[in-house]
Amino acid sequence: MTTTTTTADQRATPEQLGIGMRLSVHPHCDDFVDVILGALEDARVSGAADGLETVTDEVSTYVAASGDAPEQRLVRYAAEVLAAAHRRCGDGHVVAHVLLSRGCPGEATCDLTVRALPAAEPVDLPAAGVAAAAQWSLYPLLDGGDTSDHMSHIEAAIDASRSRGVASEPAHYATLLRGDLTEVLATAADAWAAVGREVPHVVTHLTVSVGSPTGAQS
Amino acid sequence: MTTTTTTADQRATPEQLGIGMRLSVHPHCDDFVDVILGALEDARVSGAADGLETVTDEVSTYVAASGDAPEQRLVRYAAEVLAAAHRRCGDGHVVAHVLLSRGCPGEATCDLTVRALPAAEPVDLPAAGVAAAAQWSLYPLLDGGDTSDHMSHIEAAIDASRSRGVASEPAHYATLLRGDLTEVLATAADAWAAVGREVPHVVTHLTVSVGSPTGAQS
Repeated sequence: MTTTTTTADQRATPEQLGIGMRLSVHPHCDDFVDVILGALEDARVSGAADGLETVTDEVSTYVAASGDAPEQRLVRYAAEVLAAAHRRCGDGHVVAHVLLSRGCPGEATCDLTVRALPAAEPVDLPAAGVAAAAQWSLYPLLDGGDTSDHMSHIEAAIDASRSRGVASEPAHYATLLRGDLTEVLATAADAWAAVGREVPHVVTHLTVSVGSPTGAQS
Repeated sequence: MTTTTTTADQRATPEQLGIGMRLSVHPHCDDFVDVILGALEDARVSGAADGLETVTDEVSTYVAASGDAPEQRLVRYAAEVLAAAHRRCGDGHVVAHVLLSRGCPGEATCDLTVRALPAAEPVDLPAAGVAAAAQWSLYPLLDGGDTSDHMSHIEAAIDASRSRGVASEPAHYATLLRGDLTEVLATAADAWAAVGREVPHVVTHLTVSVGSPTGAQS
Protein backbone atom coordinates (compact mmCIF):
# COMPACT_ATOMS: atom_id res chain seq x y z
CA MET A 1 0.00 0.00 0.00
CA THR A 2 2.98 2.35 0.10
CA THR A 3 4.30 4.21 -2.90
CA THR A 4 7.98 3.89 -2.15
CA THR A 5 8.76 1.35 -4.86
CA THR A 6 6.13 2.50 -7.34
CA THR A 7 6.74 4.57 -10.43
CA ALA A 8 4.58 7.61 -11.00
CA ASP A 9 2.50 6.11 -13.80
CA GLN A 10 1.33 3.27 -11.56
CA ARG A 11 -0.17 5.67 -9.04
CA ALA A 12 -3.88 6.38 -8.93
CA THR A 13 -4.80 9.79 -10.33
CA PRO A 14 -7.13 12.25 -8.53
CA GLU A 15 -9.85 11.26 -11.04
CA GLN A 16 -9.39 7.56 -10.28
CA LEU A 17 -9.49 8.28 -6.55
CA GLY A 18 -12.58 10.45 -6.88
CA ILE A 19 -11.14 13.27 -4.77
CA GLY A 20 -13.91 15.70 -3.91
CA MET A 21 -16.11 17.41 -1.38
CA ARG A 22 -19.69 18.02 -0.36
CA LEU A 23 -20.14 21.55 1.00
CA SER A 24 -23.12 23.27 2.59
CA VAL A 25 -23.02 26.83 3.92
CA HIS A 26 -25.46 28.10 6.52
CA PRO A 27 -25.60 31.87 7.18
CA HIS A 28 -27.62 32.61 10.32
CA CYS A 29 -29.35 35.65 8.84
CA ASP A 30 -32.65 36.51 7.17
CA ASP A 31 -31.08 37.26 3.77
CA PHE A 32 -29.30 33.90 3.61
CA VAL A 33 -30.21 33.30 -0.06
CA ASP A 34 -28.47 36.49 -1.23
CA VAL A 35 -25.54 35.80 1.10
CA ILE A 36 -24.99 32.30 -0.31
CA LEU A 37 -25.39 33.32 -3.94
CA GLY A 38 -23.07 36.29 -3.42
CA ALA A 39 -20.44 34.14 -1.71
CA LEU A 40 -20.47 31.61 -4.56
CA GLU A 41 -20.08 34.47 -7.04
CA ASP A 42 -17.17 35.91 -5.02
CA ALA A 43 -15.37 32.56 -5.20
CA ARG A 44 -16.03 32.35 -8.95
CA VAL A 45 -14.67 35.84 -9.58
CA SER A 46 -11.54 35.21 -7.48
CA GLY A 47 -10.73 32.10 -9.51
CA ALA A 48 -11.20 29.72 -6.57
CA ALA A 49 -13.75 27.73 -8.58
CA ASP A 50 -11.50 27.35 -11.64
CA GLY A 51 -11.10 23.71 -12.63
CA LEU A 52 -13.64 22.48 -10.10
CA GLU A 53 -16.85 20.71 -11.10
CA THR A 54 -19.79 21.77 -8.92
CA VAL A 55 -23.29 20.28 -8.76
CA THR A 56 -25.78 21.73 -6.28
CA ASP A 57 -28.79 19.84 -4.93
CA GLU A 58 -31.27 20.86 -2.25
CA VAL A 59 -28.94 19.93 0.63
CA SER A 60 -25.37 20.60 -0.47
CA THR A 61 -22.96 21.16 -3.34
CA TYR A 62 -20.78 18.39 -4.73
CA VAL A 63 -17.35 19.70 -5.72
CA ALA A 64 -14.97 17.47 -7.69
CA ALA A 65 -11.31 18.32 -8.21
CA SER A 66 -9.10 16.84 -10.88
CA GLY A 67 -5.61 17.77 -12.06
CA ASP A 68 -2.85 19.05 -9.82
CA ALA A 69 -3.15 19.74 -6.08
CA PRO A 70 -6.85 18.83 -5.74
CA GLU A 71 -6.71 18.97 -1.93
CA GLN A 72 -5.41 22.53 -1.95
CA ARG A 73 -8.03 23.71 -4.44
CA LEU A 74 -10.87 22.18 -2.43
CA VAL A 75 -9.65 23.85 0.77
CA ARG A 76 -9.26 27.20 -1.01
CA TYR A 77 -12.80 27.01 -2.40
CA ALA A 78 -14.40 26.08 0.94
CA ALA A 79 -12.44 28.77 2.81
CA GLU A 80 -13.28 31.50 0.29
CA VAL A 81 -17.00 30.67 0.15
CA LEU A 82 -17.28 30.55 3.93
CA ALA A 83 -15.25 33.75 4.47
CA ALA A 84 -17.31 35.58 1.83
CA ALA A 85 -20.58 34.43 3.40
CA HIS A 86 -19.35 35.64 6.80
CA ARG A 87 -18.47 39.06 5.33
CA ARG A 88 -21.75 39.36 3.41
CA CYS A 89 -23.68 38.38 6.56
CA GLY A 90 -22.28 41.50 8.33
CA ASP A 91 -19.41 39.50 9.88
CA GLY A 92 -22.16 37.34 11.31
CA HIS A 93 -22.50 33.73 12.30
CA VAL A 94 -22.03 31.24 9.45
CA VAL A 95 -21.54 27.50 9.72
CA ALA A 96 -20.37 25.21 6.92
CA HIS A 97 -20.50 21.47 6.74
CA VAL A 98 -17.64 19.94 4.76
CA LEU A 99 -17.25 16.29 3.71
CA LEU A 100 -13.96 15.42 1.98
CA SER A 101 -13.77 12.00 0.30
CA ARG A 102 -11.14 10.02 -1.59
CA GLY A 103 -11.03 6.43 -2.81
CA CYS A 104 -14.69 5.91 -3.67
CA PRO A 105 -15.24 7.58 -7.04
CA GLY A 106 -18.65 6.01 -7.69
CA GLU A 107 -21.98 7.07 -6.30
CA ALA A 108 -23.63 4.29 -4.34
CA THR A 109 -20.81 1.83 -4.91
CA CYS A 110 -17.05 1.82 -4.63
CA ASP A 111 -15.38 0.66 -7.80
CA LEU A 112 -11.83 1.78 -7.13
CA THR A 113 -9.33 -0.51 -8.77
CA VAL A 114 -6.61 -0.79 -6.17
CA ARG A 115 -3.49 0.93 -7.42
CA ALA A 116 -0.55 2.46 -5.64
CA LEU A 117 -1.72 5.45 -3.62
CA PRO A 118 -0.18 8.84 -4.34
CA ALA A 119 1.28 11.23 -1.79
CA ALA A 120 -0.41 14.64 -1.65
CA GLU A 121 1.48 17.87 -1.11
CA PRO A 122 0.43 19.61 2.12
CA VAL A 123 -2.02 22.46 1.62
CA ASP A 124 -0.14 25.80 1.42
CA LEU A 125 -2.47 28.80 1.38
CA PRO A 126 -2.45 32.26 2.99
CA ALA A 127 -4.49 32.75 6.14
CA ALA A 128 -8.13 33.73 5.63
CA GLY A 129 -7.99 36.31 8.41
CA VAL A 130 -11.16 34.85 9.92
CA ALA A 131 -11.15 32.94 13.22
CA ALA A 132 -12.92 29.58 13.15
CA ALA A 133 -13.80 26.64 15.37
CA ALA A 134 -14.56 23.20 13.98
CA GLN A 135 -15.77 19.78 15.01
CA TRP A 136 -13.66 17.31 13.02
CA SER A 137 -14.02 13.56 12.44
CA LEU A 138 -11.90 11.25 10.26
CA TYR A 139 -12.94 7.84 8.93
CA PRO A 140 -10.38 5.43 7.45
CA LEU A 141 -12.63 2.81 5.79
CA LEU A 142 -10.62 -0.38 6.01
CA ASP A 143 -11.62 -3.73 4.55
CA GLY A 144 -10.93 -7.30 5.55
CA GLY A 145 -7.37 -8.12 4.62
CA ASP A 146 -5.95 -4.83 5.82
CA THR A 147 -3.92 -5.69 8.89
CA SER A 148 -4.02 -2.25 10.52
CA ASP A 149 -6.69 -0.96 12.86
CA HIS A 150 -8.71 2.16 12.10
CA MET A 151 -8.05 3.95 15.40
CA SER A 152 -4.26 3.95 14.90
CA HIS A 153 -4.73 6.02 11.73
CA ILE A 154 -7.06 8.43 13.53
CA GLU A 155 -4.74 8.83 16.51
CA ALA A 156 -1.74 9.52 14.27
CA ALA A 157 -3.74 12.20 12.44
CA ILE A 158 -4.80 13.87 15.70
CA ASP A 159 -1.19 13.87 16.92
CA ALA A 160 -0.12 15.58 13.69
CA SER A 161 -2.84 18.22 14.09
CA ARG A 162 -1.57 19.03 17.58
CA SER A 163 1.88 19.84 16.20
CA ARG A 164 0.43 22.61 13.99
CA GLY A 165 -0.68 26.11 14.97
CA VAL A 166 -4.28 24.89 15.19
CA ALA A 167 -5.14 23.99 18.75
CA SER A 168 -6.98 20.71 19.04
CA GLU A 169 -8.69 19.03 21.91
CA PRO A 170 -10.56 15.74 22.09
CA ALA A 171 -14.34 15.57 22.35
CA HIS A 172 -16.78 12.71 22.09
CA TYR A 173 -16.77 11.45 18.48
CA ALA A 174 -14.75 14.40 17.20
CA THR A 175 -11.76 16.67 17.72
CA LEU A 176 -12.20 20.41 18.23
CA LEU A 177 -9.98 22.61 16.07
CA ARG A 178 -9.53 26.36 16.56
CA GLY A 179 -7.56 28.84 14.51
CA ASP A 180 -7.56 30.68 11.23
CA LEU A 181 -10.31 29.35 8.96
CA THR A 182 -7.93 28.25 6.20
CA GLU A 183 -5.55 26.57 8.64
CA VAL A 184 -8.44 24.70 10.32
CA LEU A 185 -9.56 23.34 6.94
CA ALA A 186 -5.96 22.59 5.90
CA THR A 187 -5.32 20.65 9.11
CA ALA A 188 -8.23 18.33 8.39
CA ALA A 189 -7.42 18.05 4.67
CA ASP A 190 -3.75 17.25 5.25
CA ALA A 191 -4.63 14.56 7.80
CA TRP A 192 -7.22 13.07 5.42
CA ALA A 193 -4.71 13.01 2.55
CA ALA A 194 -2.02 11.50 4.77
CA VAL A 195 -4.29 8.59 5.77
CA GLY A 196 -5.07 8.27 2.06
CA ARG A 197 -1.46 7.18 1.40
CA GLU A 198 -2.20 3.97 3.29
CA VAL A 199 -5.97 3.47 3.19
CA PRO A 200 -7.66 3.74 -0.24
CA HIS A 201 -11.08 4.95 0.97
CA VAL A 202 -11.00 7.70 3.61
CA VAL A 203 -13.57 10.37 4.44
CA THR A 204 -13.42 13.34 6.80
CA HIS A 205 -16.24 15.57 8.09
CA LEU A 206 -15.99 19.09 9.51
CA THR A 207 -18.63 21.36 10.97
CA VAL A 208 -16.91 24.76 10.78
CA SER A 209 -18.23 27.78 12.68
CA VAL A 210 -17.25 31.43 12.20
CA GLY A 211 -18.66 34.49 13.94
CA SER A 212 -20.47 32.55 16.66
CA PRO A 213 -21.78 34.83 19.40
CA THR A 214 -21.02 32.16 22.01
CA GLY A 215 -17.73 30.84 20.67
CA ALA A 216 -14.27 31.74 21.80
CA GLN A 217 -13.47 32.56 18.18
CA SER A 218 -15.98 35.37 17.82
CA MET B 1 -20.00 -11.08 16.15
CA THR B 2 -23.67 -12.14 16.07
CA THR B 3 -25.87 -12.30 19.12
CA THR B 4 -27.80 -15.44 18.22
CA THR B 5 -26.11 -17.75 20.73
CA THR B 6 -25.41 -15.13 23.36
CA THR B 7 -27.31 -14.58 26.56
CA ALA B 8 -28.50 -11.10 27.40
CA ASP B 9 -25.99 -10.44 30.14
CA GLN B 10 -23.08 -11.01 27.75
CA ARG B 11 -24.25 -8.26 25.44
CA ALA B 12 -22.70 -4.83 25.48
CA THR B 13 -24.91 -2.22 27.13
CA PRO B 14 -25.64 1.20 25.58
CA GLU B 15 -23.19 2.71 28.09
CA GLN B 16 -20.45 0.27 27.09
CA LEU B 17 -21.12 0.99 23.41
CA GLY B 18 -21.10 4.75 23.96
CA ILE B 19 -24.31 5.31 21.99
CA GLY B 20 -24.75 9.01 21.39
CA MET B 21 -24.97 11.94 19.04
CA ARG B 22 -23.47 15.30 18.20
CA LEU B 23 -26.15 17.76 17.08
CA SER B 24 -25.90 21.29 15.70
CA VAL B 25 -28.94 23.31 14.59
CA HIS B 26 -28.68 26.20 12.15
CA PRO B 27 -31.70 28.50 11.75
CA HIS B 28 -31.26 30.78 8.73
CA CYS B 29 -32.71 33.83 10.46
CA ASP B 30 -31.45 36.91 12.31
CA ASP B 31 -32.87 35.84 15.68
CA PHE B 32 -31.13 32.45 15.57
CA VAL B 33 -29.99 32.62 19.21
CA ASP B 34 -33.55 32.94 20.54
CA VAL B 35 -34.75 30.30 18.07
CA ILE B 36 -32.15 27.76 19.22
CA LEU B 37 -32.63 28.45 22.94
CA GLY B 38 -36.40 28.27 22.52
CA ALA B 39 -36.21 25.00 20.59
CA LEU B 40 -34.03 23.40 23.27
CA GLU B 41 -36.51 24.56 25.92
CA ASP B 42 -39.42 23.12 23.91
CA ALA B 43 -37.69 19.73 23.82
CA ARG B 44 -37.02 19.89 27.54
CA VAL B 45 -40.64 20.73 28.36
CA SER B 46 -41.98 17.95 26.13
CA GLY B 47 -39.83 15.37 27.91
CA ALA B 48 -37.69 14.60 24.85
CA ALA B 49 -34.53 15.43 26.81
CA ASP B 50 -35.42 13.16 29.75
CA GLY B 51 -32.63 10.69 30.49
CA LEU B 52 -30.26 12.25 27.99
CA GLU B 53 -26.95 13.81 28.99
CA THR B 54 -26.20 16.95 26.97
CA VAL B 55 -22.99 18.99 26.85
CA THR B 56 -22.83 22.02 24.53
CA ASP B 57 -19.61 23.49 23.16
CA GLU B 58 -19.13 26.28 20.64
CA VAL B 59 -19.78 24.03 17.63
CA SER B 60 -22.33 21.41 18.65
CA THR B 61 -24.06 19.57 21.47
CA TYR B 62 -23.00 16.12 22.60
CA VAL B 63 -26.01 13.99 23.57
CA ALA B 64 -25.46 10.64 25.31
CA ALA B 65 -28.24 8.09 25.74
CA SER B 66 -28.20 5.28 28.26
CA GLY B 67 -30.92 2.87 29.37
CA ASP B 68 -33.64 1.48 27.14
CA ALA B 69 -34.14 2.35 23.46
CA PRO B 70 -31.29 4.87 23.18
CA GLU B 71 -31.62 5.08 19.38
CA GLN B 72 -35.29 6.05 19.59
CA ARG B 73 -34.66 8.71 22.24
CA LEU B 74 -31.84 10.30 20.23
CA VAL B 75 -34.03 10.45 17.11
CA ARG B 76 -36.93 11.93 19.07
CA TYR B 77 -34.70 14.63 20.57
CA ALA B 78 -33.14 15.64 17.23
CA ALA B 79 -36.52 15.67 15.47
CA GLU B 80 -38.20 17.74 18.19
CA VAL B 81 -35.40 20.31 18.40
CA LEU B 82 -35.27 20.72 14.63
CA ALA B 83 -39.07 20.91 14.23
CA ALA B 84 -39.31 23.46 17.05
CA ALA B 85 -36.54 25.60 15.51
CA HIS B 86 -38.35 25.50 12.16
CA ARG B 87 -41.61 26.62 13.82
CA ARG B 88 -39.93 29.36 15.87
CA CYS B 89 -38.13 30.60 12.73
CA GLY B 90 -41.54 31.33 11.12
CA ASP B 91 -41.59 27.95 9.34
CA GLY B 92 -38.30 29.05 7.85
CA HIS B 93 -35.17 27.34 6.65
CA VAL B 94 -33.30 25.36 9.32
CA VAL B 95 -30.51 22.84 8.79
CA ALA B 96 -29.21 20.41 11.39
CA HIS B 97 -26.08 18.37 11.35
CA VAL B 98 -26.38 15.04 13.14
CA LEU B 99 -23.57 12.58 13.94
CA LEU B 100 -24.68 9.28 15.50
CA SER B 101 -21.94 7.06 16.95
CA ARG B 102 -21.74 3.66 18.64
CA GLY B 103 -18.83 1.44 19.60
CA CYS B 104 -16.29 4.09 20.57
CA PRO B 105 -17.25 5.27 24.04
CA GLY B 106 -13.98 7.13 24.73
CA GLU B 107 -13.01 10.55 23.55
CA ALA B 108 -9.85 10.46 21.46
CA THR B 109 -9.42 6.72 21.74
CA CYS B 110 -11.57 3.64 21.33
CA ASP B 111 -11.45 1.40 24.37
CA LEU B 112 -14.43 -0.83 23.66
CA THR B 113 -13.96 -4.28 25.07
CA VAL B 114 -15.37 -6.52 22.37
CA ARG B 115 -18.53 -8.17 23.64
CA ALA B 116 -21.52 -9.58 21.85
CA LEU B 117 -23.34 -6.79 20.09
CA PRO B 118 -26.99 -6.15 20.96
CA ALA B 119 -29.84 -5.83 18.50
CA ALA B 120 -31.69 -2.51 18.62
CA GLU B 121 -35.42 -2.18 18.23
CA PRO B 122 -36.36 -0.14 15.15
CA VAL B 123 -37.29 3.45 15.91
CA ASP B 124 -41.07 3.81 16.25
CA LEU B 125 -42.22 7.43 16.56
CA PRO B 126 -45.12 9.47 15.19
CA ALA B 127 -44.44 11.63 12.14
CA ALA B 128 -43.16 15.14 12.84
CA GLY B 129 -45.43 16.66 10.21
CA VAL B 130 -42.48 18.53 8.73
CA ALA B 131 -41.03 17.63 5.31
CA ALA B 132 -37.26 17.17 5.22
CA ALA B 133 -34.42 16.37 2.85
CA ALA B 134 -31.12 14.95 4.03
CA GLN B 135 -27.66 14.05 2.84
CA TRP B 136 -26.77 10.80 4.60
CA SER B 137 -23.47 8.92 4.95
CA LEU B 138 -22.72 5.73 6.90
CA TYR B 139 -19.27 4.56 8.05
CA PRO B 140 -18.71 1.00 9.30
CA LEU B 141 -15.23 1.24 10.86
CA LEU B 142 -13.79 -2.20 10.38
CA ASP B 143 -10.42 -3.38 11.65
CA GLY B 144 -7.91 -5.93 10.44
CA GLY B 145 -9.26 -9.37 11.24
CA ASP B 146 -12.80 -8.58 10.17
CA THR B 147 -13.35 -10.55 6.98
CA SER B 148 -16.16 -8.40 5.56
CA ASP B 149 -15.77 -5.33 3.38
CA HIS B 150 -17.14 -1.95 4.41
CA MET B 151 -19.10 -1.26 1.22
CA SER B 152 -21.23 -4.40 1.59
CA HIS B 153 -22.57 -3.05 4.90
CA ILE B 154 -23.28 0.35 3.34
CA GLU B 155 -25.03 -1.13 0.31
CA ALA B 156 -27.24 -3.33 2.49
CA ALA B 157 -28.23 -0.29 4.55
CA ILE B 158 -29.10 1.73 1.44
CA ASP B 159 -31.20 -1.15 0.10
CA ALA B 160 -33.12 -1.24 3.39
CA SER B 161 -33.75 2.52 3.25
CA ARG B 162 -35.25 2.15 -0.22
CA SER B 163 -37.83 -0.30 1.09
CA ARG B 164 -39.18 2.32 3.52
CA GLY B 165 -41.45 5.27 2.80
CA VAL B 166 -38.43 7.55 2.61
CA ALA B 167 -37.33 7.95 -0.97
CA SER B 168 -33.59 7.63 -1.40
CA GLU B 169 -31.33 8.27 -4.31
CA PRO B 170 -27.57 7.96 -4.64
CA ALA B 171 -25.28 10.96 -4.80
CA HIS B 172 -21.52 11.32 -4.64
CA TYR B 173 -20.37 10.37 -1.12
CA ALA B 174 -23.91 10.29 0.27
CA THR B 175 -27.50 9.16 -0.20
CA LEU B 176 -30.33 11.69 -0.45
CA LEU B 177 -33.33 10.99 1.77
CA ARG B 178 -36.67 12.78 1.50
CA GLY B 179 -39.77 12.45 3.63
CA ASP B 180 -41.16 13.29 7.02
CA LEU B 181 -38.42 14.65 9.29
CA THR B 182 -38.79 11.90 11.90
CA GLU B 183 -38.85 9.16 9.27
CA VAL B 184 -35.73 10.55 7.59
CA LEU B 185 -33.87 10.49 10.91
CA ALA B 186 -35.27 7.05 11.78
CA THR B 187 -34.15 5.61 8.44
CA ALA B 188 -30.56 6.63 9.09
CA ALA B 189 -30.67 5.58 12.76
CA ASP B 190 -32.12 2.15 12.01
CA ALA B 191 -29.50 1.51 9.31
CA TRP B 192 -26.73 2.64 11.69
CA ALA B 193 -28.02 0.36 14.48
CA ALA B 194 -28.39 -2.57 12.05
CA VAL B 195 -24.74 -2.30 10.96
CA GLY B 196 -23.91 -2.08 14.67
CA ARG B 197 -25.05 -5.68 15.15
CA GLU B 198 -22.07 -6.80 13.08
CA VAL B 199 -19.50 -4.00 13.28
CA PRO B 200 -18.65 -2.68 16.77
CA HIS B 201 -17.73 0.88 15.74
CA VAL B 202 -20.10 2.56 13.29
CA VAL B 203 -20.85 6.23 12.70
CA THR B 204 -23.45 7.95 10.53
CA HIS B 205 -23.71 11.61 9.49
CA LEU B 206 -26.79 13.50 8.28
CA THR B 207 -27.19 17.05 7.06
CA VAL B 208 -30.95 17.56 7.41
CA SER B 209 -32.73 20.48 5.76
CA VAL B 210 -36.27 21.72 6.44
CA GLY B 211 -38.03 24.73 4.94
CA SER B 212 -35.50 25.28 2.16
CA PRO B 213 -36.73 27.83 -0.39
CA THR B 214 -35.06 25.85 -3.17
CA GLY B 215 -35.79 22.33 -2.02
CA ALA B 216 -38.58 20.06 -3.18
CA GLN B 217 -39.49 19.60 0.47
CA SER B 218 -40.43 23.23 1.08
